[in-house]
Formats: sequence, C-alpha cells, structure tokens
Amino acid sequence: MLLYTCKTAPSPRRTRMFISEKGVEVPMQEIDLRSGEHFSEAFLRRNPDATVPVLELDDGTCISESDAICTYFEALYPDPPLMGADARSRGLVSMWNRRMEFDGYLAVAEGFRNGAAGFRDRAVPGRHKVPQVEALAGRGAQRYRAFLEDLDERLGESEYVAGDTFSIADITAFVTVEFARGALKIEPEAGQKHIARWHEAVSSRPSARA
Amino acid sequence: MLLYTCKTAPSPRRTRMFISEKGVEVPMQEIDLRSGEHFSEAFLRRNPDATVPVLELDDGTCISESDAICTYFEALYPDPPLMGADARSRGLVSMWNRRMEFDGYLAVAEGFRNGAAGFRDRAVPGRHKVPQVEALAGRGAQRYRAFLEDLDERLGESEYVAGDTFSIADITAFVTVEFARGALKIEPEAGQKHIARWHEAVSSRPSARA
Repeated sequence: MLLYTCKTAPSPRRTRMFISEKGVEVPMQEIDLRSGEHFSEAFLRRNPDATVPVLELDDGTCISESDAICTYFEALYPDPPLMGADARSRGLVSMWNRRMEFDGYLAVAEGFRNGAAGFRDRAVPGRHKVPQVEALAGRGAQRYRAFLEDLDERLGESEYVAGDTFSIADITAFVTVEFARGALKIEPEAGQKHIARWHEAVSSRPSARA
Repeated sequence: MLLYTCKTAPSPRRTRMFISEKGVEVPMQEIDLRSGEHFSEAFLRRNPDATVPVLELDDGTCISESDAICTYFEALYPDPPLMGADARSRGLVSMWNRRMEFDGYLAVAEGFRNGAAGFRDRAVPGRHKVPQVEALAGRGAQRYRAFLEDLDERLGESEYVAGDTFSIADITAFVTVEFARGALKIEPEAGQKHIARWHEAVSSRPSARA
C-alpha cells in the first residue's frame, strides 16, 4: 500500500489526518504539484484525473478522492469510528461532512483557484482545462465568511461538528479553516469563540500534525 | 420515517432511486420548491439549509443531503450493496460516485443555477443568498460535455460506472444525464454508444421511475 500525497495541499491532508486518527502507518510518497508531477504519464496512469491523494493497493488498484480513501480505511479499520457507528450516526456524520465540504472547503477552493495566477486554466481540479472566472474569487470568500458564521453557531450547540464525538466532519472543517488562512488570507473572527474552542481542541490532537 | 422530496428536482431523485433499489417502502411528502416551501419556517426547522431531500426519523432526527440519506439506508439495509461490499469496493464506488457528482452533477447544477432566471440570488443551494455569475452558465455546459466524453470512455471498459455491478455511482450518473437534458438542453452525442447502452439498461430498471 502506498499513499501519494503532497504536504502543501489541503485535500491529501484530510486523508493523512484520517489515517493518523486510525493509528495506522501507511507508506507515503510526495508528489511535487509545483513542477506538475501530477500531470506526468506515470501519475496519470494511477489517476487520470491528476489529483492527489491517490492510494495504491498491493494489487495495483488505485483509489483517488480523499473521501473515498477515507471510506476504504473506515471499512478496513472500523475503530475508532470516524464516519459514524450505526445507521443514524452514519447518516448524520455524512450530512455534516458534506456541509463542511460543500459550504466550506469548496467555497475556499473556488475563491482560491479562480484568483491565483498558478491556476489560470485549472480553476477546477481534474484532467480538463477549465478557465478561471474572476468573479468567483470574491464569491468564494463571501461564501466562506458565511460558512464561518454557520460553523460557529453549530459549535455553540455541539462539542464536535457532527455531535459528541470527533469525526471526519471535524477533519474536513479543520483542514478548511487551515486552507483558508493561506489561500484566502481569512481567519475566523475574534468573536467566533466556539470555533476558537474547537480549533484549539482539534489542533492539540496528534493527527493535526499529520 | 418520512422523506421530504420533490418530483421535479434531481437531488431527491437520487435518493428515491436508491431506496427503490433497496426494495424499501418509505412514506414521502412533496415539497413545492416553486412556491418556496423549502424556505418556510416548518421546513427550515427540519433543514436550515433549505434543500430537499430530507429524511425525518421517528425520533425527530432530520438527515439532509441525498448522499447522507443513502448512507443511512445502506447501513440499515446492506442488501443489495449499492456502496460496495468490502473495503476495496467501498473505496472504488465512493471514488466513482464522487467523480460522477463533481465532474458531472455539479457541472450541470453550476451551468443551470447560474443561468436560470428563477435562481437569481440562489446560484448555490443553501441558506445564504449567492449571486449568479453569468460566465458559469457556459462553463458548466463545457464541463458537462467533457464529462460525457469521460463517461463514454469509462462505460467502454466497464459494464457499470464503478465496475461489474450496479451502484450508487450509476444512480448519480443517470440522474445527471436526465437533469442535463432539461436544465442545459444537452443530450449525450449520437456517437457515445457506451453511454447509450448503459442508459438503456438503467432506464429499464424499475427504480428509474421512482
């Protein structure tokens, strides 16, 4: 088993945090996104979509998409459960994880990829060239600020994003907040005290350094 | 248990097809999106994000996000498996389902919601107003055409999207193709014969009428 990853990209970080929370050791290989190694022939054979992370199994099967790789590890190592322990909690964790991803992570990615010079024809991840749309840089930032308000409200009523226990939804939200700091230069507001409490708790977990 | 749904919207259709494939009967209640019933106080108490579908459990718990509702039913009724049967297939089905969703479904939604008059301040689903960006109407259509090329290639090497067996990835892809027909007026090309073969097979399943 080998995980293709990139230290500076947010999506592989979600997978690394997840694996760390499972207490599993997985060999990793760094892909240099800056030099375009993800568009090399060798990498495209593993993932024609040209994205990291990719998990290569011993039989040669390659699984891409960070959430799919987490799903694989959840099935292989059910403890501790990070995607819910029964039908109800599985549904709720999935719901919260998707809210974090769609309202938070994708908003930051939209703002960043449509504004940064390095993504001129790569406004959307994947094999196809997609032109930037300038207006999205601002719209992404606006959506992310609204997301932070919602997240603070949610964390005012719940210890973790999806309820009483730490889950993949916390990983997605945490990586999103860290991603936005560099990519959009936006931090949570000083008054968002529930985010501050939660962010400190998640930061202190060993997985935050994965 | 009660599923809040809408006959004319694509996202609830994914959930209805999934439930139909499981052979389960679930009571449903129609939400009138045209009159804005999803922004009513009664509905926002169930889903502050103002989207359908929503599944209300007997204890009052509400699960939104179509994929999360499918996750709930997969855990409750594992047979037939629609999200993979072991760790490897769970990872692969999740990967393909996300590709169908991100490269296909979201491209159609982006093109539609940024172009249609009825979504002026609702370019992104959710509780917050998000303005339309005109350029995305065309970019969404361009991304969807690229998706159809990739889908045809994939279905040339595999009977179903995620491999030899029908899965949630087929449901997402099928609903996307049906959604695009009305929303973007784009059909698969006449030369995309693998899509045609697969579309006919999926259309003939009873769940296609759910």
